[in-house]
Amino acid sequence: MTEDEINQRHAEKMAKKKAARDKMLAEKTIEKGLLMVHTGKGKGKTTAAMGLAARVVGNGKKVCIVQFVKGVWNTGEREVLKHFPDLCVMKAMGEGFTWDTQDRARDIAAATAAWDFAKEAMADPSFDMVILDEMNIVLRYDYLDLAEVLNTLQARRDMLHVVITGRNAKEELIEIADLVTEMTQIKHPFRSGVKAQIGIEF
Amino acid sequence: MTEDEINQRHAEKMAKKKAARDKMLAEKTIEKGLLMVHTGKGKGKTTAAMGLAARVVGNGKKVCIVQFVKGVWNTGEREVLKHFPDLCVMKAMGEGFTWDTQDRARDIAAATAAWDFAKEAMADPSFDMVILDEMNIVLRYDYLDLAEVLNTLQARRDMLHVVITGRNAKEELIEIADLVTEMTQIKHPFRSGVKAQIGIEF
Repeated sequence: MTEDEINQRHAEKMAKKKAARDKMLAEKTIEKGLLMVHTGKGKGKTTAAMGLAARVVGNGKKVCIVQFVKGVWNTGEREVLKHFPDLCVMKAMGEGFTWDTQDRARDIAAATAAWDFAKEAMADPSFDMVILDEMNIVLRYDYLDLAEVLNTLQARRDMLHVVITGRNAKEELIEIADLVTEMTQIKHPFRSGVKAQIGIEF
Repeated sequence: MTEDEINQRHAEKMAKKKAARDKMLAEKTIEKGLLMVHTGKGKGKTTAAMGLAARVVGNGKKVCIVQFVKGVWNTGEREVLKHFPDLCVMKAMGEGFTWDTQDRARDIAAATAAWDFAKEAMADPSFDMVILDEMNIVLRYDYLDLAEVLNTLQARRDMLHVVITGRNAKEELIEIADLVTEMTQIKHPFRSGVKAQIGIEF
């Protein structure tokens, strides 16, 4: 095949792809707030939620971030989002968690306080998105009543987007979610002795 | 078991977990720039890269984002990052891509120009991170010479972090990367007819 023939075939293939894509998009007409879950053992669950927060804020909409586990949102992210005080509420509700506190009763109290705050944020019509960062972890340890959490999520305002992060998402949560992404770790530098570095791990 | 016994067992388990974690972290001593790849069909590849960019900028370090495919970085992200003109260079090098242009020769020219720009950024010692957004797509279509790309990535400055996004990452790239995350789509709202929405898809 000549270069021209390759280019011609490519153009035909791409024209078909575009037609299929346009048709697919035309069929999507429902607008609603999405329940999104980022789970899995790989990197990027909180980081992608942070990217969504930036996207919302950059669109002039308002986001509330509730941090269920201390120290997950790093200084870098905080520095960026605090340039938008009217559009981004960040609430760190976690105590040092589980392996740090080693105190289950305190963890439960912290998780409950974070969830109570989250419910207020979800009820506040000024927010377009609420991020429940690392909530999967407290659900996994049964620090919150799962049925009550699921009911509250399902009963939320129509146009409110909710993002829940953390490994080991409960099956029941995945069941009711609209968009679920699993971050799968294919390779991690810890394996080869590389330490956590500014801008990457924290 | 009483509540006190449950709490006691929990504390013991968490103490063990913390010890294992501390030991693991103490062994990680190498500092170096990482080659990171976000791939897979799920959401969050570019969004997590955007989160990393925010993290770098928030730490007062400098990032360069080279966009290989037009329209991936949305307005929201741009609005946020343009508050940090000294720390964030954003370069949209993509033409409308493949299914839009249906013009392979133009795609190759655009990919080559983007890669030339990327190489300059990687050589510029002021940058701490370079993000090659959606470069996996142009590699997949063989718009760039893979061997040359891999050689350049491996020959980069010691402390430079590079992030490459896009589905269908080449095996050879995964091979030389330090950290590879696959975003796997478990559930997507398009399936139920929900349309793309501001702050989520664009």
